[in-house]
Amino acid sequence: MDKIIVDLGNRSYPIYFGYNTLDDVGKVSSKLEISKRIAVVTNPSIGDLFFSTVAGSLEDSGFNVSIIEVPDGEKHKSLEWASILYDKLITHKMDRKCALVALGGGVVGDITGFVAATFLRGIPFIQIPTTVLAQVDSSVGGKTGVNHPKGKNLIGAFYQPKLVFIDVSTLQTLKREELLSGLAEVIKYGVIWDADLFNFIEDNLEKILNLDQLSVLKVVKKCCSIKAKVVEEDEREGGLRSILNFGHTIGHAIEALTDYKRYKHGEAVAIGMIAAANLSVKLGVCSKDIFFRIKALVQRTGLPTELPKFSKEEYARAMKMDKKIGSSGVKFVLTEDIGRVIFKTISTEEVSNLL
Amino acid sequence: MDKIIVDLGNRSYPIYFGYNTLDDVGKVSSKLEISKRIAVVTNPSIGDLFFSTVAGSLEDSGFNVSIIEVPDGEKHKSLEWASILYDKLITHKMDRKCALVALGGGVVGDITGFVAATFLRGIPFIQIPTTVLAQVDSSVGGKTGVNHPKGKNLIGAFYQPKLVFIDVSTLQTLKREELLSGLAEVIKYGVIWDADLFNFIEDNLEKILNLDQLSVLKVVKKCCSIKAKVVEEDEREGGLRSILNFGHTIGHAIEALTDYKRYKHGEAVAIGMIAAANLSVKLGVCSKDIFFRIKALVQRTGLPTELPKFSKEEYARAMKMDKKIGSSGVKFVLTEDIGRVIFKTISTEEVSNLL
Repeated sequence: MDKIIVDLGNRSYPIYFGYNTLDDVGKVSSKLEISKRIAVVTNPSIGDLFFSTVAGSLEDSGFNVSIIEVPDGEKHKSLEWASILYDKLITHKMDRKCALVALGGGVVGDITGFVAATFLRGIPFIQIPTTVLAQVDSSVGGKTGVNHPKGKNLIGAFYQPKLVFIDVSTLQTLKREELLSGLAEVIKYGVIWDADLFNFIEDNLEKILNLDQLSVLKVVKKCCSIKAKVVEEDEREGGLRSILNFGHTIGHAIEALTDYKRYKHGEAVAIGMIAAANLSVKLGVCSKDIFFRIKALVQRTGLPTELPKFSKEEYARAMKMDKKIGSSGVKFVLTEDIGRVIFKTISTEEVSNLL
Repeated sequence: MDKIIVDLGNRSYPIYFGYNTLDDVGKVSSKLEISKRIAVVTNPSIGDLFFSTVAGSLEDSGFNVSIIEVPDGEKHKSLEWASILYDKLITHKMDRKCALVALGGGVVGDITGFVAATFLRGIPFIQIPTTVLAQVDSSVGGKTGVNHPKGKNLIGAFYQPKLVFIDVSTLQTLKREELLSGLAEVIKYGVIWDADLFNFIEDNLEKILNLDQLSVLKVVKKCCSIKAKVVEEDEREGGLRSILNFGHTIGHAIEALTDYKRYKHGEAVAIGMIAAANLSVKLGVCSKDIFFRIKALVQRTGLPTELPKFSKEEYARAMKMDKKIGSSGVKFVLTEDIGRVIFKTISTEEVSNLL
């Protein structure tokens, strides 16, 4: 199995990549300094697909495995469900050496990570992401959290996993819309960091959409290594890490304006990226060609590209709710070229006017 | 004003010490990299005493100050109250640069620290401890958390403050029993680390109990510098930091067995320290003289020394609930001499039998 290391001093950890490798998670986990009692957090649909394989592999390596289920859906990424998880960990008599395993997509990964960060002031946890979004983004870098009724991820912690174990064959079971949603983040890595990756996606989009093993492995690994580099440089989002927000300022506003119902996260990010590229052109930061190239690739994937109709004022207000926005305005990520972005602090009003 | 630095790399922070210095908190805080919007978390009784001074000082330095009150008492150190604090921070439109100030004792400090650790994945916070316990122990070192119905501090995070601001004149308003309770932790520092401190307490107990300015300043500063050294060495309690648990394994069991009602924390710790010293004698680790010297000092302060009557089985069971206990037993802190302790892993049954 292939691996890379996220180098964060005493918080460093490996990311393993493979195809049909879920069987090996026990062997890899047994190298960690954790006790043999382990709890797998998952949701019923993912659990049906993969829990028995994961649990079997862990048991073969001597682990005593419990399962904790969180219902499917973003609304269960809540403090209430975190509280239910704490209760279950106490019932299972988990101590500080016992690890949690997050088996699933972003919701499961985020809430499991948050509970791991805050139970007994922090217990070890392992990410086994099973969606594109989780594999290329949310499982790496230690952002954990739950939603608050007033906004997404308002409660959370930076807390790194001990291991990220990626088996891209799990993506075969994804719905098309989830696959596409994850692909928006993949395209993002190309735009913000790596022109070669962007070219590769352009040249191999059909293969990727058909989940061709080698293409998907290559793309997922590339995205993770970019994310690892960014996080190594700026773990707590004091500077560089904000480039990962490309497309997200407007994306988050779109999600909020449509009540998190009309668009999946990646769909909103896709629209947000095109809007950000458009803004980059209007601010004289990049050429129209770049804008058209990004838009063309997003369109080819089948992701939406058009901003939903809301007033300037509604967009400005929605952006102001973003937790990353300070009093001086948005630290907006603009693209100069494929693979290169810059920051510019702009007021939310100016952004809305230019959109 | 006197200060020491807790050296934790990019998480380092100063502890300021003084007498009647609450007026200066604004000036000191304005050196921090935080925005001018700040929220002071306190409880009604502490707030009545000190909020106007603290708020006035912060306002004089240009801060815009809100107050958030948590009712008095350990039972409000809960996830429910953390959730109420999150709501208020959102209502106050606090962003990632806005700081929280914990003005009060351990309850206020622990829950404020936990909320700071987990709001927007971490915002800055300042400790202004107003009890002996908080000044010498809980405000330094980054242990934050809330209680769970099944146990104290089961939910929490290691999260360091940006500043600890200690004005020992605030101790004048403490009830006698709270003063004594804090003194148990002061004696603990003498036993585990510093024979000179122990001697000083023996020689100056009456002055300390009467809150003589210089004696109290000296003792509080000494305790904080010991705690700082321990935390610098072992921030996340992987090894050395466990020496701070001297007296606490049995102390926590006593608190749990008496439903956290009969004893204050420091009272339970006082009894626990004597039991631990007694155990040290029985295990041949220290001489009887040492045991008698510790017991004599605890007795002179007016703290309780006798174990409440519960069966061996009840003690063993209560100790097993401690979150620090692994499957192999308790990592028990034994004293070899005044100022010197060792660890020994013992089963909870053996501890109970020896008590």
